[in-house]
Amino acid sequence: MKAGFIGLGNMGAPMARNLIKAGHTLTVYNRTRSRAEQLQPLGANIAETPGGAASGVEALVTMLADDRAVEDVIFAPGHGVIDSLPAGAVHISMGTISVGLSRRLSETHHGKGQHYIAAPVLGRPAAAAAAKLFIIAAGPGGQSKRCQPLLEAMGQKTFFVGEDAPAANLIKLAVNFLFSSMIESLAEAFALVRKSGLDVNVFLGILTGSVFNLPVYRNYGAIIASDIFEPAGFKLSLGLKDNRLLLASAEEADVPMPIAGLVHDRYLAALAQGLGDSDWAAIARIAYQNSGLAEAAK
Amino acid sequence: MKAGFIGLGNMGAPMARNLIKAGHTLTVYNRTRSRAEQLQPLGANIAETPGGAASGVEALVTMLADDRAVEDVIFAPGHGVIDSLPAGAVHISMGTISVGLSRRLSETHHGKGQHYIAAPVLGRPAAAAAAKLFIIAAGPGGQSKRCQPLLEAMGQKTFFVGEDAPAANLIKLAVNFLFSSMIESLAEAFALVRKSGLDVNVFLGILTGSVFNLPVYRNYGAIIASDIFEPAGFKLSLGLKDNRLLLASAEEADVPMPIAGLVHDRYLAALAQGLGDSDWAAIARIAYQNSGLAEAAK
Amino acid sequence: MKAGFIGLGNMGAPMARNLIKAGHTLTVYNRTRSRAEQLQPLGANIAETPGGAASGVEALVTMLADDRAVEDVIFAPGHGVIDSLPAGAVHISMGTISVGLSRRLSETHHGKGQHYIAAPVLGRPAAAAAAKLFIIAAGPGGQSKRCQPLLEAMGQKTFFVGEDAPAANLIKLAVNFLFSSMIESLAEAFALVRKSGLDVNVFLGILTGSVFNLPVYRNYGAIIASDIFEPAGFKLSLGLKDNRLLLASAEEADVPMPIAGLVHDRYLAALAQGLGDSDWAAIARIAYQNSGLAEAAK
Amino acid sequence: MKAGFIGLGNMGAPMARNLIKAGHTLTVYNRTRSRAEQLQPLGANIAETPGGAASGVEALVTMLADDRAVEDVIFAPGHGVIDSLPAGAVHISMGTISVGLSRRLSETHHGKGQHYIAAPVLGRPAAAAAAKLFIIAAGPGGQSKRCQPLLEAMGQKTFFVGEDAPAANLIKLAVNFLFSSMIESLAEAFALVRKSGLDVNVFLGILTGSVFNLPVYRNYGAIIASDIFEPAGFKLSLGLKDNRLLLASAEEADVPMPIAGLVHDRYLAALAQGLGDSDWAAIARIAYQNSGLAEAAK
Repeated sequence: MKAGFIGLGNMGAPMARNLIKAGHTLTVYNRTRSRAEQLQPLGANIAETPGGAASGVEALVTMLADDRAVEDVIFAPGHGVIDSLPAGAVHISMGTISVGLSRRLSETHHGKGQHYIAAPVLGRPAAAAAAKLFIIAAGPGGQSKRCQPLLEAMGQKTFFVGEDAPAANLIKLAVNFLFSSMIESLAEAFALVRKSGLDVNVFLGILTGSVFNLPVYRNYGAIIASDIFEPAGFKLSLGLKDNRLLLASAEEADVPMPIAGLVHDRYLAALAQGLGDSDWAAIARIAYQNSGLAEAAK
Repeated sequence: MKAGFIGLGNMGAPMARNLIKAGHTLTVYNRTRSRAEQLQPLGANIAETPGGAASGVEALVTMLADDRAVEDVIFAPGHGVIDSLPAGAVHISMGTISVGLSRRLSETHHGKGQHYIAAPVLGRPAAAAAAKLFIIAAGPGGQSKRCQPLLEAMGQKTFFVGEDAPAANLIKLAVNFLFSSMIESLAEAFALVRKSGLDVNVFLGILTGSVFNLPVYRNYGAIIASDIFEPAGFKLSLGLKDNRLLLASAEEADVPMPIAGLVHDRYLAALAQGLGDSDWAAIARIAYQNSGLAEAAK
Repeated sequence: MKAGFIGLGNMGAPMARNLIKAGHTLTVYNRTRSRAEQLQPLGANIAETPGGAASGVEALVTMLADDRAVEDVIFAPGHGVIDSLPAGAVHISMGTISVGLSRRLSETHHGKGQHYIAAPVLGRPAAAAAAKLFIIAAGPGGQSKRCQPLLEAMGQKTFFVGEDAPAANLIKLAVNFLFSSMIESLAEAFALVRKSGLDVNVFLGILTGSVFNLPVYRNYGAIIASDIFEPAGFKLSLGLKDNRLLLASAEEADVPMPIAGLVHDRYLAALAQGLGDSDWAAIARIAYQNSGLAEAAK
Repeated sequence: MKAGFIGLGNMGAPMARNLIKAGHTLTVYNRTRSRAEQLQPLGANIAETPGGAASGVEALVTMLADDRAVEDVIFAPGHGVIDSLPAGAVHISMGTISVGLSRRLSETHHGKGQHYIAAPVLGRPAAAAAAKLFIIAAGPGGQSKRCQPLLEAMGQKTFFVGEDAPAANLIKLAVNFLFSSMIESLAEAFALVRKSGLDVNVFLGILTGSVFNLPVYRNYGAIIASDIFEPAGFKLSLGLKDNRLLLASAEEADVPMPIAGLVHDRYLAALAQGLGDSDWAAIARIAYQNSGLAEAAK
């Protein structure tokens, strides 16, 4: 399929690579051009503007960090996606953006005779590289089917959750909330275990050797147990961004989410300690500090 | 091995059964005698007092609901375990009790020349029946080894966590905290998903079909999604009891555990709605109520 | 002084009235014209547009409900305040708006050679009518002095907090946070007292007869004790708005404010019960409900 | 009146002094005898045991730090109050103890033909010295009347709250909760104000110069603004004790009190930083730390 791809960060770059490997013809755009050039040897064309990546394609994928980045490429006056994407083509929005922006994109594309699918992903860069992402997709049924070859090239499984695109974004935010809640819970439990003089690794071994035998518990458990949060797999500042989008959706729906509020405060405290570029699991540091635990005796 | 067993509730009865099946000679005591009589056909002897179950045995297992029940059978004046258990024999305490009582038991038994192992379990009645419990054991190394044939008859795996018996109780409480935190998190996420007009079962299917592919997420997720919390697998009032014991340990160690505090409030609100005998997952009902969600459209 | 006044709601109308009484020449604008007409007999001129209230005046007062209302009158294309206020004149912004908008107003007015003072108030409609408001003012020193005759006509006391206008808005939001926190605390205490079978009015009498001998405790205490929250003195939906602005400022400053987060959840739960138009003290209803207390036996 | 007095700490000593000044005949007991000896020159008799202070008196006042201290003097085998207080005499329990212990005392005294009044106080040592305490009293009506001359010698006002003695203790705990909640709220607001570059003393001046014009706001506000919490007016460890008693009563009544839970976590965090002997307002330190504020630039 002839496709465009915008956003070649830690996630986007391997995803684009997998699309090329699967035989799709790709035109890529990235604000920092050098990251686009790295895909040239594989056969990618380079666009000089967001609109350039969208013109003449059947599908355009965006994989960008936040709402503003998406707005910038879609609505850039004169050279934005919205003015270049052919009528009948589909925009597949795969970053974690707000439910509100997703709705706006859905409506705006519709008004231009273009299609829109929200398809945020679960998984870290390694999963992206291995084409093992989980994809949560929503949008008009026919378009979802049409995009399937692209999604299959990037993920191990796609969950279609209906015709209303923003639903996929809400679900993605809710999943991230469950991760952050798991991280905070582990942090509190580890603080108690450490402060009681026990070995958190023994505790973690019990968890993952019995009822919580799951990669996410093993991976995050190990990070939190080590009390080392750099380099970041997923930046704390992005975790706060997702938390903020979740709370906005919760507020719109009049749904109190006290754990989400508590995690929000942890993010702010972590930012206040300068941990914005650390892994989002660094909210554990606040649980440790408030327990009087010095940083891990490494 | 010649052993005693006290506490034949939903968990204790199948555990005792498995000990008999494995060839051990059992003398059992239960406050409600009829439950003890049910084991007679299998070859169990019935004791008329706690002390009767302890006298002449090599090991005595207790599987009781709370601190008070344990204190009652151990310290019952005249016919308690403490006065009947032979010197050199070992008390294996398998219920979820406080760290403080576990320490007291450890010291008191030691003073009598008896031994003490704390060995709380993870798993519900079905797992107990299938001898698939996970056992967290702590106490003097030699005694742990000595008890292994008994533990192996009841569980699929034993984690030894050191010589200090109360450590096992602390870890068990911390695991239960992680369960309750998972339940509350799911409840908040489900409230948001429901209130946003989406199907929680679709959401749950995504969770368990991707990153949270685990029986505990599947089972509790299904209960919370159904908004039906009876009959109880594990009673809410017992969940509160464990939460209270955890908070007591956290307080003793000067460790703030905000999610544990939040869950505590959920338990109280649920009790105030008369949900004490419902499953502990019924704290989800409060998240639903505070979101203005009527009970599930079943 | 020749002045304009925009926003004649429950607060604005009596404030404008007091300005006229003090001898100032007023041109007023209100979206619903009939409210402006009520001031005509007192001598007010009526403007047909926001800009009409601003043209030719020395000072323009706005007393509007939220950021959007302020943006609408200031930036209305063609007939907004920003294009009509004379250079050298001053905009006195007295509603509770965000720190961010206050900064933007400060900068935009400055760019037009106009002046800007933020002067939010403490007090309810009765205090506004009695010219007993407390005013928190910030902005260029000379302008503050210049506006003093106007402020004195509306309030009993003005606190000048410096040259940076948005500081006044931040302080106002922080004061409102203290009110909401007091309300939630009283609600929790009253729930305990009621559920323990004691009379909350006796309890309230002790509070206000000893260490909390203060009108705000007496007034809000009486409302919460009665469990009757209509008609609203200050609407719950506006309380949520102020809470949201506070949390935005806290987030910008990386300051976790857990009580503010908790109160936020109470607002959402109250909205979910349809209490948006009740008094903001109706967050007490959630504390009562979560305690299993039926509505007050009135 | 012939009376006994047990507990001559920072509060008890001036209270006893005021009783003597008012003409009552006092026999005093204190664990550390030297503190009792200081009252000898004023005419106090010294008892060698708690029972000694109770024998032959018409009324016995206890002013002790916690439940354990009260249990120790009342139930001390052989020389406790319970065995020495004459039938018909009354025990006035003025310390802040648990509702549960108050109930037990009420019943035990009743069983001995003795009377019991709970009469906890509001006020700090300076108020005790000036006989300006507020007293919350409950118990049999006739006994309350009988004790009035004693209470009037120690306080400026007594609130009688009914015949059920423990009600006074519950109310006292609820008042202390309101204090701690006020402290935490101020701390959060001050953290925001400080972090935003404003002067907290200006902010505090506005509060106490307008709607929160009250000694408790002035005094605690000044302490929190200074970020200096030593010497303690009321120790943080005692604040935690009262908070714990409140939460126990809330738990007994199935009343969730989220702010009380939040304050509880602040106490633990403060203890973990070694602030147990600082003023209870030192929970503000945690709000500052979590905001990334170094200790006050003094």
